[in-house]
Amino acid sequence: MSGTVRVLPLGGVGEIGKNMTVVEYDGRIVVVDCGLRFPTAEMMGIDLVLPDFTYLRENVDKIDAIVITHGHEDHIGSLPWVIRDLGQEKIPVVYGGQLTIAMARSKLDEHKLRDVNLEVLPIGDVVEAGPFTLERVHLTHSIPDASGVAIGTPLGTVFFTGDYKFDQTPVIGPPADMSRLAELGREGLLLLCGDSTNADRPGISDSESIVGPHLNRVFGRCEGRIVVTCFASNIHRVQQVVHAAEKNGRKVALVGRSMRKNVNIGRSLGHIDIPEGMLLPPREIDQWPDEKIVVISTGSQGEPLSALRRMAYRDHPQVELKSGDTVVFSATPIPGNERAVNETIDRLYHIGCTVVTARDAPIHASGHGYAEEVKMMINLTRPKYVMPVHGDFKRMLLHGELAQAVGVPEENIFRTENGTPLEISAEGAKFGKPEHSGMIFVDGVDIGDVSDVALRDRRMLSADGIFIVVATISEEDGSSVVPPEVIARGVPFLEGNDKFTDDLREAVEDSLDAAAEQQITEVDVLQSHLHDDLAQFIYDRLKRRPMVLPVVVEV
Amino acid sequence: MSGTVRVLPLGGVGEIGKNMTVVEYDGRIVVVDCGLRFPTAEMMGIDLVLPDFTYLRENVDKIDAIVITHGHEDHIGSLPWVIRDLGQEKIPVVYGGQLTIAMARSKLDEHKLRDVNLEVLPIGDVVEAGPFTLERVHLTHSIPDASGVAIGTPLGTVFFTGDYKFDQTPVIGPPADMSRLAELGREGLLLLCGDSTNADRPGISDSESIVGPHLNRVFGRCEGRIVVTCFASNIHRVQQVVHAAEKNGRKVALVGRSMRKNVNIGRSLGHIDIPEGMLLPPREIDQWPDEKIVVISTGSQGEPLSALRRMAYRDHPQVELKSGDTVVFSATPIPGNERAVNETIDRLYHIGCTVVTARDAPIHASGHGYAEEVKMMINLTRPKYVMPVHGDFKRMLLHGELAQAVGVPEENIFRTENGTPLEISAEGAKFGKPEHSGMIFVDGVDIGDVSDVALRDRRMLSADGIFIVVATISEEDGSSVVPPEVIARGVPFLEGNDKFTDDLREAVEDSLDAAAEQQITEVDVLQSHLHDDLAQFIYDRLKRRPMVLPVVVEV
Repeated sequence: MSGTVRVLPLGGVGEIGKNMTVVEYDGRIVVVDCGLRFPTAEMMGIDLVLPDFTYLRENVDKIDAIVITHGHEDHIGSLPWVIRDLGQEKIPVVYGGQLTIAMARSKLDEHKLRDVNLEVLPIGDVVEAGPFTLERVHLTHSIPDASGVAIGTPLGTVFFTGDYKFDQTPVIGPPADMSRLAELGREGLLLLCGDSTNADRPGISDSESIVGPHLNRVFGRCEGRIVVTCFASNIHRVQQVVHAAEKNGRKVALVGRSMRKNVNIGRSLGHIDIPEGMLLPPREIDQWPDEKIVVISTGSQGEPLSALRRMAYRDHPQVELKSGDTVVFSATPIPGNERAVNETIDRLYHIGCTVVTARDAPIHASGHGYAEEVKMMINLTRPKYVMPVHGDFKRMLLHGELAQAVGVPEENIFRTENGTPLEISAEGAKFGKPEHSGMIFVDGVDIGDVSDVALRDRRMLSADGIFIVVATISEEDGSSVVPPEVIARGVPFLEGNDKFTDDLREAVEDSLDAAAEQQITEVDVLQSHLHDDLAQFIYDRLKRRPMVLPVVVEV
Repeated sequence: MSGTVRVLPLGGVGEIGKNMTVVEYDGRIVVVDCGLRFPTAEMMGIDLVLPDFTYLRENVDKIDAIVITHGHEDHIGSLPWVIRDLGQEKIPVVYGGQLTIAMARSKLDEHKLRDVNLEVLPIGDVVEAGPFTLERVHLTHSIPDASGVAIGTPLGTVFFTGDYKFDQTPVIGPPADMSRLAELGREGLLLLCGDSTNADRPGISDSESIVGPHLNRVFGRCEGRIVVTCFASNIHRVQQVVHAAEKNGRKVALVGRSMRKNVNIGRSLGHIDIPEGMLLPPREIDQWPDEKIVVISTGSQGEPLSALRRMAYRDHPQVELKSGDTVVFSATPIPGNERAVNETIDRLYHIGCTVVTARDAPIHASGHGYAEEVKMMINLTRPKYVMPVHGDFKRMLLHGELAQAVGVPEENIFRTENGTPLEISAEGAKFGKPEHSGMIFVDGVDIGDVSDVALRDRRMLSADGIFIVVATISEEDGSSVVPPEVIARGVPFLEGNDKFTDDLREAVEDSLDAAAEQQITEVDVLQSHLHDDLAQFIYDRLKRRPMVLPVVVEV
């Protein structure tokens, strides 16, 4: 539609507009972010969850650019799958900050996608992409090089905040560019798509800088080894740990693959400064006295295979913890991870470690602005329309209330759903017809829409296991040729219970006899007949509903 | 061992001495509590987790009594299984408070165990049981009728606190009996087994009574329907909801099976007072204006089948919620339930409900005493030895530190493990040889030690599904008689992928041919050979490791 700006969030579940948003004008497309999310416990065995980008596939020739706001997985993680699917040559350019592009390159390399046109878009530059202009605006977040994206259209500018907070004293680099935000406001912003993550927290978030002095104080009380765990992408947090270590006369060692990878990239780009000689390879940890060491580790969320988890279970090849050591959790658990984090902590207590968490000292700061910052963003950018994104329903609702509190009329606030485009023209704004959206799953090498059937089967298998019954019958008269085979997996208490297995075999024979009487010969029908009889038999006897899978072989 | 008091915790995982503890003297036994716990996510499909009571089975003739401290599931829940297993006639008597015994009776009735000798042991009474004396001491907790248990032996008295707080202003009934605790102290307490649940929280817990006025204030602001969710056994909380409803001119309706059951029992025993005409049957809710109704509901933990969860998903037969209604969470999520609770809350926002949680107003109070109360308990009872129980490792450690802070010598504090008895004689106290302990699982009608194999199978099935391959071969030469059957369950992306299934069938034939060449004829060996070949084939193609189950039928 010419003369119409269309903003279509495609990303994820639970949260809206987080992983991927399509901006359209005059039949052309810019994509903001290409992220993914991690599966919940109910998505059994699924490795990753991508936004369903069918819409991009169907409109691939319209894409002028992809812009990434920052390097967190939920904004950058689906890039390899999206690009492989759409074709490297089909995406004219992927823009982002220097660190973000370096992280994208490292990801694409791992997927052997080496022909993608990745370009650093420096702060202050404005580039054209089809009918759009693109500009990154510097903001602050829990990863360096985070930015909002201003997309200029003939109708006006759409601004995506990405993830942000207004940190007035960031660890490295300037604070958020409030001046440019205000300028966007003075120029007249058409639409603001703003982060709602902490819209429910009153006041203003703590600066990342408050963490350093508290880490320093905690370190000062420690006598043994110190292990600090935080998100591997939180380069400025790592920087503060390094400074605190230095002040306390300790060396640092990085443990965990993603920690080493991110710090290396961050170091090469100047986002972190580790003085010469401060950094020890993990294998040298044991050559230094305990009181000279700080280990910086992955595993702040209690992830099963993470370095810290392995230390807690005394299973890490390089780091052995003991009584008198201290483990500092410089992160808070993401909802759903509480139990895994608690288990890790309790194992550490078992070993005799002291554990310090964000409950005990201010050693963590959130990367997302609180309610006053959300209001500040709206007051600076003075948007005509507001579309709250990044959050569950509640937080987007609260974001809308904050917008009203600073004077945005209620009718100009649009709480959308993934797949529902907001269409803005000279006449005003309204929701358009929903487009195809949803999630697709990565499972092993395959990606696709894991049919509900497969997940339902997995749930059933996981709850009660499976009985497989193989009946070999004569092609001529349907009679049993050999005794039926009965095999169970994931069904407890069967071992030694030969009587049950014998009875089940008998039930198979009875069911086959009954089928013969009813002249059931078609294999499919016979299998379904067997299934119903045996499922009933098993439920009556075990009061459980395992999957029952009869296989009839005709010979 | 004569002259020795033996205290053997048998209960549960993660927490110690919570579900069941055995006290022995002179070859006789008293059991304190018979509880259970709920399975964690990794215990796939398991319904309930009981303490492994093999030790009781082997020593059943020594049991003189079971004493239950209070009616929560983790203290009373395994009673039906334990009694059915040991035999009703083998347990001379089960003691507890009036409410506790009523709840036990209701549970045992459901299991058709009607010949158990259940006896109310009133506060102040001391009964004899073998070489022991038994006395309940009134304490306060989040269920009425909670008590500690003092077990007198010729060597001195052992005191189990059960779950407790020192609530100076309980909603109904007297505060904790500090006077009797002090008397126990003056008489000289041998051992204190004390609740560690909140040993990590500084200060003193809030009184249950603070909740009422805040509920009243919240109700005063509501215009639509109000739903309050709390634990069904928290009768005093329900009482306060009823009072607040009354003050606001609203009727109450109880929704959820356990809520109705517990309130009925509590009402019949005078633990809750619901004025005539206040209580509506759920089916009459719709006949009253919204502003005249308070629904009290189960589901405070986001449980999948609970009444509140069904309301949130617009699936409750009697209660339909809409914009303008208010849902009050008068409980906090137990670790591990956060995500389910958050999901429920977000669904409620979606409907347009206002949601009030303990974060927004003090509408919940914990049932377990904080650090100062733990110290108070030790100062009152002045035990010679202290055994911290009920808690993870960290909290029991902190409980020990609190004991030291009030003067218990470090060498008199015993942090035990389940299965490890503390043995106290005139010479002193030490740990004895560990006894058999652990967990047993309830799965359907069966109870027992779910072998690791079954759980491992379920995990494998849930992560990647299963391939079943049925090869029918000739008894004479091992050649394939009919084409192999290939069936998959819980494996996504196979539908329409006939090529993969064909290739897999071919791989079966190849593997059978190779086996024939190697003269493999034994069915077991052949199956194992097939398994290895096919697992490799499937991993190479799908990069997943589903369970592979080859069945060879010889005809």
